[in-house]
Amino acid sequence: MAGKVVLHYFNGRGKMESIRWLLTVAEVEFDEVYLNTREQYEKLLSDGALMFQQVPLVEIDGMKLVQTKAILNYIAEKYNLHGKDLKDRVMINMYSEGLIDLMEMIMILPFSADVKSKLDNIQTKAKERYLPVFEKALSGPIYLVGGKLSFADVELLECTLMLEEKFPAILADFPNIKAFQGRMTQIPAISRFLQPGSKRKPQPDETYVKTVMEVFDVKLPFP
Amino acid sequence: MAGKVVLHYFNGRGKMESIRWLLTVAEVEFDEVYLNTREQYEKLLSDGALMFQQVPLVEIDGMKLVQTKAILNYIAEKYNLHGKDLKDRVMINMYSEGLIDLMEMIMILPFSADVKSKLDNIQTKAKERYLPVFEKALSGPIYLVGGKLSFADVELLECTLMLEEKFPAILADFPNIKAFQGRMTQIPAISRFLQPGSKRKPQPDETYVKTVMEVFDVKLPFP
Repeated sequence: MAGKVVLHYFNGRGKMESIRWLLTVAEVEFDEVYLNTREQYEKLLSDGALMFQQVPLVEIDGMKLVQTKAILNYIAEKYNLHGKDLKDRVMINMYSEGLIDLMEMIMILPFSADVKSKLDNIQTKAKERYLPVFEKALSGPIYLVGGKLSFADVELLECTLMLEEKFPAILADFPNIKAFQGRMTQIPAISRFLQPGSKRKPQPDETYVKTVMEVFDVKLPFP
Repeated sequence: MAGKVVLHYFNGRGKMESIRWLLTVAEVEFDEVYLNTREQYEKLLSDGALMFQQVPLVEIDGMKLVQTKAILNYIAEKYNLHGKDLKDRVMINMYSEGLIDLMEMIMILPFSADVKSKLDNIQTKAKERYLPVFEKALSGPIYLVGGKLSFADVELLECTLMLEEKFPAILADFPNIKAFQGRMTQIPAISRFLQPGSKRKPQPDETYVKTVMEVFDVKLPFP
């Protein structure tokens, strides 16, 4: 295959962070080119590198991939984290779509007005709509689908760590998920990713928000 | 496999319409149970049929599937509309993610304030961001990916027909897409689906909007 994997995105989590997580668990090395200026973005546009004028952009296997979910599915399938058959795969996809919905609610917060009420809504939805599904799925099995590590497990770990940053005690009523977290963080690649100095990105700060706004030439707050 | 496919959704397009299109092209017969009342929705919730308390819900092969994209991928893969290999599949997914982004902008309109400016934005994005990608992809090939009908073609047809409902002349500058539409609508299953009396749903009207609001117990307009 054609050289190293290269990620083009902001120096921050956003839509790329799930891709970083998945590559990490697949033990695929990657480089990053950070999008810091409007000029860099315009260069990518004029080069025709961005199919729909959007990032994430991932260079992999000689292709320039866009659309987060398309990229995630490609990596998951290529590195055997997408289930053994069609029925496993649809379960993995159902779980991961739900987790991405929840993570997107958190992702958009730094660009939002009325953060307090949005946080309350996220906490309620997490506790009532999302976490009970995973708590039940993990009552017994070690992994979410097919007795084997998958993309859905990686997303669940990423999502629950994000939730705990906002709501430190949120897993108190979800012991199976908490135990799952403990197991997952012992996987060597994940353990390394959680150490300082790894390619994992911190929570978004003002610099990140300002950069995104400048690169895309938009104004705050989003509706 | 376990009996007939059953769709649970409103009697309208929404997120289910792409699933209806894909089943139609796959020549899979399906029944529909329309969600008309809050009580029906609460029954689905209390039965535990809705993993994340959301519809679409599709009963297929003994499973209760939720999450539109997970359902679409399952059907596409099962009925051989998802490419011959990983590289085809990621192209199909990139195209379809872009088309779904565009269709969702149209889908949300009846629930939105300031429809005029949103319509203008959709038209601009369609002409400048999305349609040029497909026009170029179809300069020569008959189908978008791998010389063979796929899920992405079905989504492109659905999306361009939706666009033409809002902007009748929008394909004037995209002759390859217009020719593609002509070819696609001659596929017998599609030709039947486009006839009156088929399971294709009309554009959303006031009754549809009112039903969605009542079932989900929410108020207009969405932000």
